[in-house]
Amino acid sequence: MSVTSTAMRSVTVAVGDGYRVHVGSDLAGTAVELVRHPRVAVVSDSNVAPVHARGVASALAAAGTHVDTLTVPAGEASKSLAVWGDLLSRLARTGMGRDGAIVAVGGGVVGDLAGFAAASYLRGVALYQYPTSLLAMVDASVGGKTGLDLPEGKNLVGAFWQPRAVIADVATLRTLPEREFRQGTVELVKHGYLRDPELLGVVGDEWHRAAPPERLVDAVTRSVAVKAAVVAADERERGERAYLNLGHTLAHALEAASGLAMQHGDAVAYGMLYAGLLGRARGHADLVPDLLRLVEWLQPVPFPELGFDRFATFMARDKKAVGGATRFVLLRRVGEPYLAADVSDDEQRSAFRELEELVR
Amino acid sequence: MSVTSTAMRSVTVAVGDGYRVHVGSDLAGTAVELVRHPRVAVVSDSNVAPVHARGVASALAAAGTHVDTLTVPAGEASKSLAVWGDLLSRLARTGMGRDGAIVAVGGGVVGDLAGFAAASYLRGVALYQYPTSLLAMVDASVGGKTGLDLPEGKNLVGAFWQPRAVIADVATLRTLPEREFRQGTVELVKHGYLRDPELLGVVGDEWHRAAPPERLVDAVTRSVAVKAAVVAADERERGERAYLNLGHTLAHALEAASGLAMQHGDAVAYGMLYAGLLGRARGHADLVPDLLRLVEWLQPVPFPELGFDRFATFMARDKKAVGGATRFVLLRRVGEPYLAADVSDDEQRSAFRELEELVR
Repeated sequence: MSVTSTAMRSVTVAVGDGYRVHVGSDLAGTAVELVRHPRVAVVSDSNVAPVHARGVASALAAAGTHVDTLTVPAGEASKSLAVWGDLLSRLARTGMGRDGAIVAVGGGVVGDLAGFAAASYLRGVALYQYPTSLLAMVDASVGGKTGLDLPEGKNLVGAFWQPRAVIADVATLRTLPEREFRQGTVELVKHGYLRDPELLGVVGDEWHRAAPPERLVDAVTRSVAVKAAVVAADERERGERAYLNLGHTLAHALEAASGLAMQHGDAVAYGMLYAGLLGRARGHADLVPDLLRLVEWLQPVPFPELGFDRFATFMARDKKAVGGATRFVLLRRVGEPYLAADVSDDEQRSAFRELEELVR
Repeated sequence: MSVTSTAMRSVTVAVGDGYRVHVGSDLAGTAVELVRHPRVAVVSDSNVAPVHARGVASALAAAGTHVDTLTVPAGEASKSLAVWGDLLSRLARTGMGRDGAIVAVGGGVVGDLAGFAAASYLRGVALYQYPTSLLAMVDASVGGKTGLDLPEGKNLVGAFWQPRAVIADVATLRTLPEREFRQGTVELVKHGYLRDPELLGVVGDEWHRAAPPERLVDAVTRSVAVKAAVVAADERERGERAYLNLGHTLAHALEAASGLAMQHGDAVAYGMLYAGLLGRARGHADLVPDLLRLVEWLQPVPFPELGFDRFATFMARDKKAVGGATRFVLLRRVGEPYLAADVSDDEQRSAFRELEELVR
């Protein structure tokens, strides 16, 4: 039997002691090489456990590691204090000591939850991220953000806890709903606008969850490289990391206004288009046609009919607002983001009118 | 009116960006100078809130800071996920952002709980420790350990989160039960055995919760200096910090065997005496007479009649045991601790017999 394997690529994240993001196809064997601890807990959710986590756990166990598989219910509701507390109790009952490790196999929810468990169990144990969604590969698994939700709001609890390694296995994407794949593509392309124009052309005929592995590996690697560069420059989100919020000022307002019914990728795509309109009106490069193509490819849920004033209220409430001013990440051109805290009400209103005309 | 104020002293803890432990008397004004944030939560417990936290909160509010006072029930039971989760929700409802700060006013429980809240709220906000027990001043408030208990065991959850400053106000000790003061004295003297012989003579006629402030300030400062030096050499407890466990191998066994009925200071005093006996039998300096005087001054609860074999089981279970060997911190002489993983069963049994004879 001959196996044609896809060449694995890797990106170094220069934070703390530094760690690598390995991008390739069918990487359970890579996990075995990287995760060398006497005791490992593979944490995943009820969707991912049977499809991907079991394989990783079996590979580790076959190599002689003591493995416990801990599964939480699928869905954002698992980012709760209750599920996290139960996970910690289960970890304690496995007898894991400080030399143990957690391998998070799943999407963003599992990564955030298992990541915070790793940050807090025994004041911190080793963490490995094995993301199985495109969004988690290019965004959540890199950068060390972990978090839980409170009844008062999302991601209000957490820690910065960097993984020892990230293993992005594009073979896992085949089981991802195509709609989820497209959601992740939005953040992947967002990284292109920030630093890598090559990524802007990624969306096309052959861009889907079962695209040729080489193609997926190349785009994921490029996108991760952008995220890694930004995170390394600003581990604790005090400056440059804010650029990653391109499109997110409107996106957060859209999510809040929709009661979280709108998916994140849809909201960010609308938000990036809005940022493009704000920038074009300031005389920056016209990125609107390209951004509109992204929105059309994405086929997001319809833009809600709420009117600018409602949105402005939600945007002003964004937790990253400083000193009362609503802040936007704008692009002078591809690769040149800046943080604008001086976008006037008139500018916001006028671009909003254009946005409504384009997407309705 | 003339006020004779006690000179404040300070110790620098060279961890991360570094921070200072300020030791003095009546330091609410010092808190105002140090805690400069737009929004502050003063966290304390039901015992400490009316006596000390209110004063600190008032002083901060008088200086123009927006202050919320958050109180939890007194007692170890507050180091639970439930109380911590409730504290986080209350923080969120105050609207505190990342530029806010938590001031922990209380003993070790409040410091551990509020410390972990600071470590995890919005992935970390500034923390100030304002310890009001002797034990918290010389031990828990310095070094960045924060933690919660699980049903499966104590301190299984937490983070290393260094405070921006520690404000050790010896005036607060006047309201501390004398028995608690003596418990804290054990850890204070333990630091003397590790690095500062001057501290060994601290216990005497004038050593009590209402001792002259100068005397309290001097001893607390010396003891904190030892802890700071050890912590700076080993922030994440990978090496030298283990010396702080002098007396703790037996102490943890005593606490476990007593179902946590025995107080920590009592257990550590017995444990230090045991370490002294183990050391003397190896031909190290004879510290037994001095350690016995400490135990007699302390008037601990009686040593339980369990027999060596039961204790050996509990000691072997100690979470810091590595590779199965029970580890003890022993002293070649005052100021020369080392970690012994080679203490034979016979040595342990023989010293245990001597211990029983001395303390029964």
